[in-house]
Amino acid sequence: MAMVCLSDFEAYAKKYLPKIAWDFFAAGADDCITRDENILAYKRIHFRPRMLRDVSIMDIRTKLLGTEISFPVGIAPTGFHQLAWPDGEKSTARAAKAMNTCYITSTYSTCTLEEISAAAPGGLRWFQLYIHRNRAVSQQLVQRAEALGFQALVLTADLPYTGKRRDDVRNGFRLPPHMKLKNLEGAFEVCKISLLDPSVTWNDIHWLQSLTHLPIIIKGILTKEDAELAVRHGVQGIIVSNHGGRQLDGGPATIDALVEVVEAVQGRVEVYLDGGIRKGSDVLKALALGAKCVFIGRPALWGLAYKGEEGLQDVLRILQDEFRLSMALAGCASVSEIGQHLVQFSKL
Amino acid sequence: MAMVCLSDFEAYAKKYLPKIAWDFFAAGADDCITRDENILAYKRIHFRPRMLRDVSIMDIRTKLLGTEISFPVGIAPTGFHQLAWPDGEKSTARAAKAMNTCYITSTYSTCTLEEISAAAPGGLRWFQLYIHRNRAVSQQLVQRAEALGFQALVLTADLPYTGKRRDDVRNGFRLPPHMKLKNLEGAFEVCKISLLDPSVTWNDIHWLQSLTHLPIIIKGILTKEDAELAVRHGVQGIIVSNHGGRQLDGGPATIDALVEVVEAVQGRVEVYLDGGIRKGSDVLKALALGAKCVFIGRPALWGLAYKGEEGLQDVLRILQDEFRLSMALAGCASVSEIGQHLVQFSKL
Amino acid sequence: MAMVCLSDFEAYAKKYLPKIAWDFFAAGADDCITRDENILAYKRIHFRPRMLRDVSIMDIRTKLLGTEISFPVGIAPTGFHQLAWPDGEKSTARAAKAMNTCYITSTYSTCTLEEISAAAPGGLRWFQLYIHRNRAVSQQLVQRAEALGFQALVLTADLPYTGKRRDDVRNGFRLPPHMKLKNLEGAFEVCKISLLDPSVTWNDIHWLQSLTHLPIIIKGILTKEDAELAVRHGVQGIIVSNHGGRQLDGGPATIDALVEVVEAVQGRVEVYLDGGIRKGSDVLKALALGAKCVFIGRPALWGLAYKGEEGLQDVLRILQDEFRLSMALAGCASVSEIGQHLVQFSKL
Amino acid sequence: MAMVCLSDFEAYAKKYLPKIAWDFFAAGADDCITRDENILAYKRIHFRPRMLRDVSIMDIRTKLLGTEISFPVGIAPTGFHQLAWPDGEKSTARAAKAMNTCYITSTYSTCTLEEISAAAPGGLRWFQLYIHRNRAVSQQLVQRAEALGFQALVLTADLPYTGKRRDDVRNGFRLPPHMKLKNLEGAFEVCKISLLDPSVTWNDIHWLQSLTHLPIIIKGILTKEDAELAVRHGVQGIIVSNHGGRQLDGGPATIDALVEVVEAVQGRVEVYLDGGIRKGSDVLKALALGAKCVFIGRPALWGLAYKGEEGLQDVLRILQDEFRLSMALAGCASVSEIGQHLVQFSKL
Repeated sequence: MAMVCLSDFEAYAKKYLPKIAWDFFAAGADDCITRDENILAYKRIHFRPRMLRDVSIMDIRTKLLGTEISFPVGIAPTGFHQLAWPDGEKSTARAAKAMNTCYITSTYSTCTLEEISAAAPGGLRWFQLYIHRNRAVSQQLVQRAEALGFQALVLTADLPYTGKRRDDVRNGFRLPPHMKLKNLEGAFEVCKISLLDPSVTWNDIHWLQSLTHLPIIIKGILTKEDAELAVRHGVQGIIVSNHGGRQLDGGPATIDALVEVVEAVQGRVEVYLDGGIRKGSDVLKALALGAKCVFIGRPALWGLAYKGEEGLQDVLRILQDEFRLSMALAGCASVSEIGQHLVQFSKL
Repeated sequence: MAMVCLSDFEAYAKKYLPKIAWDFFAAGADDCITRDENILAYKRIHFRPRMLRDVSIMDIRTKLLGTEISFPVGIAPTGFHQLAWPDGEKSTARAAKAMNTCYITSTYSTCTLEEISAAAPGGLRWFQLYIHRNRAVSQQLVQRAEALGFQALVLTADLPYTGKRRDDVRNGFRLPPHMKLKNLEGAFEVCKISLLDPSVTWNDIHWLQSLTHLPIIIKGILTKEDAELAVRHGVQGIIVSNHGGRQLDGGPATIDALVEVVEAVQGRVEVYLDGGIRKGSDVLKALALGAKCVFIGRPALWGLAYKGEEGLQDVLRILQDEFRLSMALAGCASVSEIGQHLVQFSKL
Repeated sequence: MAMVCLSDFEAYAKKYLPKIAWDFFAAGADDCITRDENILAYKRIHFRPRMLRDVSIMDIRTKLLGTEISFPVGIAPTGFHQLAWPDGEKSTARAAKAMNTCYITSTYSTCTLEEISAAAPGGLRWFQLYIHRNRAVSQQLVQRAEALGFQALVLTADLPYTGKRRDDVRNGFRLPPHMKLKNLEGAFEVCKISLLDPSVTWNDIHWLQSLTHLPIIIKGILTKEDAELAVRHGVQGIIVSNHGGRQLDGGPATIDALVEVVEAVQGRVEVYLDGGIRKGSDVLKALALGAKCVFIGRPALWGLAYKGEEGLQDVLRILQDEFRLSMALAGCASVSEIGQHLVQFSKL
Repeated sequence: MAMVCLSDFEAYAKKYLPKIAWDFFAAGADDCITRDENILAYKRIHFRPRMLRDVSIMDIRTKLLGTEISFPVGIAPTGFHQLAWPDGEKSTARAAKAMNTCYITSTYSTCTLEEISAAAPGGLRWFQLYIHRNRAVSQQLVQRAEALGFQALVLTADLPYTGKRRDDVRNGFRLPPHMKLKNLEGAFEVCKISLLDPSVTWNDIHWLQSLTHLPIIIKGILTKEDAELAVRHGVQGIIVSNHGGRQLDGGPATIDALVEVVEAVQGRVEVYLDGGIRKGSDVLKALALGAKCVFIGRPALWGLAYKGEEGLQDVLRILQDEFRLSMALAGCASVSEIGQHLVQFSKL
């Protein structure tokens, strides 16, 4: 079977992963409307491609908070990579480094931050965190991440409680006994997500800033009001995200929410996006609407499920090639030429 | 089979109820467009969820005309509960009381008002009535309800004649011989809905007010014009309803009609809604658009069909959990924080 | 099989008619988009039903050019009724008279005008005509119709040439040898539609007026410009029609075109509609948007195919009952209360 | 099997062509959204047909840059006609000449320009070209075409690189060994599309103009900005095209893009369109929106696959008949009467 596009990896993963793992990765909240909208929304955006521009030399590099990456696609934080591939997050780290892009490592990794760092020394990594009821746990994680060279903290804002994913309830999903949330061992019992603190507010950003010199990115913003609050509280970046449609069903597609966030932010901080990226042209649409970079969640897991590190590189390479081609066909030779003039929302 | 969401109860009821009973409960008028629109319309409303608000302590209680209920979901008036469960409306009353919510008891109950009251003493109940050609029948029902402690009258305004439900015609639907419209026994022959008075007008509200001290809620309003008339005629509440799509096919989805009714009423009376509620997030959308409370019809019957009182409690508990979670994920810790800013109508 | 709604008759006709006849009646031009839009367009119109109006006494009668009919649904002109039922148009005439409504008799009848008149003496009938290259043919038909008591002429304006109906081409459709276009026998050879005159213009209305004292209705108008021309040329009525989607594929649904025609006409002549009527509530929508009456084409043929005169009466009776019920449920006791306030076009 | 409409030829070609050839012709980029939109977009455009106009004498001729053709449909440039029929482009040229229309011959022909010219001497042909890295190749092609009597050059602007057509990748598509890109033999190796120059800009139009006296048409324009640039750079015509949806997936349907291009051009040069034409009424819609002529790509190949020259004539004759009928039914007796008043975009 030729792996030509990301859907091929999805089909592979669906076929070969244990059902309970596939269901967990695929799950959306409730009726999965937001999960599916993340993808459908791209179909309502049309390009306005420009012709006869010199696209003989293509430059698809961009920078994340000043650090160059090979193209504007990183790895979104997702948990439990050992469910997809034995080496888990170590493979993810290696693939991201090989492709010279950013890997946002989840708190809910099945490898320790130390193992991940050792697997791909020097790779660009950000650390995703929640704020725990026991703040000492969060503090310890932040300090470990900083010491290990993670270059930013990504605070997930949309999970005061876990969304209702029906298949996980039906399957009685839990990690197999031989996998652990290794970053949290010792800190408290495994998988007790309820130990996250639902009382967290914007003021806790200040507390987090007091713990670290790392820049702070906030993930899960979907409105202009919250974007404004994020900027005012001194974050360095915003990830427009609905947690892959796994939290509040009925929330907007991220590509739709991006527009109002970008308009509110007015360039004061970098804005990123995750959710629904399946083709290089999706990346181009997100950049045209103001995202500095996008992050892929499920497609990265499909790549891991296919062939571990190598499979994830395949996924990234396909996206890279498609993105470069889309740019050229739209008349852009470098990411700096991408702008809102390239797209319009379909009336339909 | 795990009962995870309301659709599970629907599937159960469809499988285990006699076809004639399932068809009767499921029926919509004509092509069932309005029945189905009631549900589809929610998919066109997106949340604008807010992040990093303290949702550690959730308060989902609300008040109906001053009386507190555990969450803003009550039981809509539907007839013939014995078709779903042997104990019929007695089970419904018990479940509603156990869950501390309001049960609007239908005139077309298969238990008497007295039996229902005795089954769950002290429960919050409203009485749904029609105005009969023989006004003495209505008067007697109103007075019985008031004497039994029902706390409001719900006048159904959208049934001067019964809608055309094709399956009921095909099935030759009628109550099995061992079930009776017990509240009407003696008053006139069973099931002669044609004894309802199609000449009823707004003036009859005044007649009704002269019979009772109970507040009067009018059910079946779908336009701003009628909402204004309702307020002017001194009702205490309005239920935006299209009778579950069982009366005039082609009428608006209730969640769409809610907007214009709420705008017309301007807070002068409480506005409720029934029709299409299938998830906790539907409840949140209705409240965001101005409903004080919603009522469930078919899902309550599915719960009864599953396990009587216990099954209906399951349905209510699921809705309650989903509503609480949706609120938290949208950034609201109490119902007072829910407002129109939380939603927007999709352009699609 | 219970015949509950018009779709039941459609299913019967599809099952029992010879394929070539079914295909001919069902045919639309090209991709059948306009044929299907005629029906779909009704689903995009919502009612704004009004409550608590006295609908105890329902008056659904209307007048066509001053002549009362039992309800605002007549029989549209369609050809070849013997393909549906042996007695052909004689049965149609009897059913229309029995139901006290108007039957627009087609030039392409398989019974003569004389046979049709004799079958149902005193019935309200209009005569549909084309203008032939040989004007003497048209003149003779007009004079026969007038002498036989037809009360209006309906000039079909949308058939300078016959639309392309793919199935008819594939089937090599032609009348069976034992059926004749009896009104045209002697005048010229049967079925040579190409003898119609594609050079007809508005001036020919004046020629037609010079031949007859009958009022002239023009059928096939879809734009405000042509509606204005029709009024200026002194017609007494307009039938908004796209020939059941059998002529120009891609034309508007008639219910959509009705709006602009009614607005242009400003009450100067009566406006009718055919196309897509399948339920009583469709009739109500058309009247709310300004039609004085609607006409049914294919459903009449299904009724004939079911049981001849009796079947067509069944169809009309069902529509009558559904229309009366829809009116009542929308809060109208007589057709004079029906107005544009009753409907709105869905944003979707 | 009767060949009644273009879909019949499509079904034939799909059934009888080798899969690899069918897939190549059918291919669209990525998810084929733009390819399919090209067709779907016509369904969102409604006619406003006019009645009672003299359409007895129909004149469907038009002129391309002053040269008369029998009706406003030409053959778009597509490659590799021998994949569809052994005689390849020679058959295409004969059919186009027989039907008195214009054939835009592709650089990627499997017959030489000389063979094509000899096959149908005197036929109206334009030559489609790319600009090659080795400009001498382009120059030689231009001069050969001019010498052979091709009457215009069509510069394809939307292929700096080839779009990603998944099926071609999966199939490992390449020309069978016995077919050659004959116009390029000797110039460089066959099928190295990468020898096209992705650095081409608007300035190269001037270079092209310096080589030839032929008028230059630019193909692949989709925005008003590029339309303006094309006019300013002195082209004689614009083909609104998205390469049949084979290049940038997510670009607009051509019929949608036509509107903004026509508005920008303001009649200064002729505007044509290709993509999605499947019926005579599609041609009428394109002309109503300002196209001077349309070109068919895949339908021409289906005609070739059916019966070579004869099959392509069948396709053209069907389109011609349908176009003439659509015009008549819309009330236009000549193409000069076609205008924007004939159409409106559906709100849906």
